[in-house]
Amino acid sequence: MTDCLFCKIAEGLIPSAKVYEDELVLAFNDIAPQAPVHILLIPKAHIESAQTLSEENDALLSRLFKVARTLAKEKGLAETGYRLITNIGNDGGQSVPHLHLHLIGGRQLKWDN
Amino acid sequence: MTDCLFCKIAEGLIPSAKVYEDELVLAFNDIAPQAPVHILLIPKAHIESAQTLSEENDALLSRLFKVARTLAKEKGLAETGYRLITNIGNDGGQSVPHLHLHLIGGRQLKWDN
Repeated sequence: MTDCLFCKIAEGLIPSAKVYEDELVLAFNDIAPQAPVHILLIPKAHIESAQTLSEENDALLSRLFKVARTLAKEKGLAETGYRLITNIGNDGGQSVPHLHLHLIGGRQLKWDN
Repeated sequence: MTDCLFCKIAEGLIPSAKVYEDELVLAFNDIAPQAPVHILLIPKAHIESAQTLSEENDALLSRLFKVARTLAKEKGLAETGYRLITNIGNDGGQSVPHLHLHLIGGRQLKWDN
């Protein structure tokens, strides 16, 4: 796991623009934001993608979504709306093979995948 | 709830191109597909969006993701990759105010939100 960028960010070995942290989850601003708000939420534990989640990760998945709701409220997006995305593998455009949830908002989003 | 399109689909009052069903979740092909595979996964119960999920819905959220993994495998996307999206509210482009997860794949996806 030592070569995983997001593991290194989770361990604090590489800096990030952190917006939230608890024992399971870290959230930080995307370095290439697509919109006024673009946050990445990651599990601290290394899980490759949503395809490799298992039912053992129920609590983690729930926590990721709970943190997303909390951050959406904090950023004023709960009323205006936002998008949650997770990319899996090459066709999905997953850039880092460590599960991450994109929280994107702050403008009217397009629908062009 | 009688005016909710996805509640009507879940109840079988409006037909859909169903690809999966269990006691909690229904999945059907999107009527306006963006890619060779474009499936919507919905809870049968009416939940407005990911913003109105609560920790009481942990099992449901887990099930939605489990069904997504299963369908991705069935459609041959587990290796090639895919994307999972949920839109919340106006800025997110949520077209039906009943929580739904888009499973999109079958080609290289863009990254243009």
